[in-house]
Amino acid sequence: MGNHVLDDVIGWRDGHIIAIDQTALPHQLSIIRLSTVDELVDAIVRLVVRGAPLLGVAGALGVALAVRQAEREGWDASRLDAEVQRIADARPTAVNLRREVLAVAAVIPDGAAAVEAAARAVHDTAVKVSKRLSERGAALLVQECRTGPLKVHTHCNTGALACLGWGTALGVIRALRDQGALAHVIADETRPLLQGSRLTAWELAQLGIEHYLAADGAGPFLIARGQADAVVVGADRVAANGDVANKIGTYSLALAARRAGIPFVVAAPESTIDAQTPSGASIPLELRADEEVTSFQGVRAAPEGTRALNYAFDITPADLVTAIVTEDRVIRP
Amino acid sequence: MGNHVLDDVIGWRDGHIIAIDQTALPHQLSIIRLSTVDELVDAIVRLVVRGAPLLGVAGALGVALAVRQAEREGWDASRLDAEVQRIADARPTAVNLRREVLAVAAVIPDGAAAVEAAARAVHDTAVKVSKRLSERGAALLVQECRTGPLKVHTHCNTGALACLGWGTALGVIRALRDQGALAHVIADETRPLLQGSRLTAWELAQLGIEHYLAADGAGPFLIARGQADAVVVGADRVAANGDVANKIGTYSLALAARRAGIPFVVAAPESTIDAQTPSGASIPLELRADEEVTSFQGVRAAPEGTRALNYAFDITPADLVTAIVTEDRVIRP
Repeated sequence: MGNHVLDDVIGWRDGHIIAIDQTALPHQLSIIRLSTVDELVDAIVRLVVRGAPLLGVAGALGVALAVRQAEREGWDASRLDAEVQRIADARPTAVNLRREVLAVAAVIPDGAAAVEAAARAVHDTAVKVSKRLSERGAALLVQECRTGPLKVHTHCNTGALACLGWGTALGVIRALRDQGALAHVIADETRPLLQGSRLTAWELAQLGIEHYLAADGAGPFLIARGQADAVVVGADRVAANGDVANKIGTYSLALAARRAGIPFVVAAPESTIDAQTPSGASIPLELRADEEVTSFQGVRAAPEGTRALNYAFDITPADLVTAIVTEDRVIRP
Repeated sequence: MGNHVLDDVIGWRDGHIIAIDQTALPHQLSIIRLSTVDELVDAIVRLVVRGAPLLGVAGALGVALAVRQAEREGWDASRLDAEVQRIADARPTAVNLRREVLAVAAVIPDGAAAVEAAARAVHDTAVKVSKRLSERGAALLVQECRTGPLKVHTHCNTGALACLGWGTALGVIRALRDQGALAHVIADETRPLLQGSRLTAWELAQLGIEHYLAADGAGPFLIARGQADAVVVGADRVAANGDVANKIGTYSLALAARRAGIPFVVAAPESTIDAQTPSGASIPLELRADEEVTSFQGVRAAPEGTRALNYAFDITPADLVTAIVTEDRVIRP
């Protein structure tokens, strides 16, 4: 555990997973302990832990958790397999979750200690990757924009809460600030679950970075009005052709950035790139409950019985993406 | 007063304005009575009455209200002038409010009865204009799309609540349904004030029209996925060059419609067209309170102290507009 609250987003302690309950933010900083696969899957489904890279770490630690539970409860190998599979399947869009679960599960024959070491290594790697990615992204933006301190527009939550370490898009913003190259951030509120309002604004406040919230529908117009020098977002999955799946609302920013002639940059670790997926058309898109749209934090907005079309993610076609920056390289689709 | 709840959105009764309190919908159908200029201005500012054409009628009736109050309270001409001006200035973006206030105020020298007759005429005209506009818009869409029953995407609230009669964009949708030419409607929730969730979904339910809500950030992606055959929106003001000011979020739909190759149609009465405004750049855009974005109906989403950029309207440039349909003509910018 680190010495800043943002260093302690998820971890392994005494055979349990501990994590910040992201549904309680920004009003309450609540640390929860997960001891069973059921608890972990529930936490993933309810977005208590969320964000593609963080889900990878949660999945890795989840395998260690499942192995401990198997020992306690005397599961046979096929039961353990099935439980590990449930973790991998808890959410469909982010590739990281399944990938890290399968990577750590491959170590199960070597015993619990090996599994825990593998899971911790996934955690450590995520932190290091985030910092390399952030610095590479900041350098790219400074080079692309060639202006004074940058006004950066971002979407959803891509900081330590989502990604560990510095984050992805928010890590790039943090690295820009540390270089004196940031003017301020405009963050979309990110309906329906308001990760921008609840999490990104909270993280930016923790970091002392000047920021403004905007309704999601306002983002494209603010870009048209010259209120952003660049758009930087994360990704839940990048297809082989460079199409990007990210939080619903991302596509509209890419359209606006193209029209305004400003860079649209995707900051995502190599682990998010899925060579097995040829294009965005084959990325499964999670369709979530109507109630997320018809209410706002439990306050009902629409009449009873109103239905919604609640895709959690959208696809930004590669031709609208200026660059994808990873910890290792800059890809120009 | 008519025989359907949507016929009674605003009216003049016994020297007072009666109106549906649009802030209480969809949970409660509450009719309020406004008896003073203070009450009317407060109702306009708080969006108890809202929508560009409805604001025109509210302004017209407001002059009659001011004349009655002047008689009761013994105002002199300059006080009456100042109070009428306050009504005209209650909201800055919609041109209808100021125009109808000034038109009816010109009749003040002819006495209270003449003012009331002029105000009622503004109301009657708005209803008739709405029906002509709706039918013309439906014919245009059928001609533009040339497919089977249409899936129509819309934004904000543009039905009877906003416009009287059938509405503008929602009137076009109603006319399409009456012709058997409508499949269903996708309506954006329209943050920050959720007019789509609260008002449009309620009106569509009253009319028995199949509909789905979407988060504002989802609209452009649903269009990209082929979930709309056309986008139809209203307008708060149309500049002489065809630039359109409408509820924040409209611009992103226009970008998406252009990329998807589907029509983006603006349904607006002639009174919304402002020949004095050369282009969107000279339309004043209302910047509203941060709290509308950082919370909803008193439930806070963002940390205390978070600031927002809360433009109520955006500008869609004329080159993204397929057609503007009014009660009299189809304009192709």
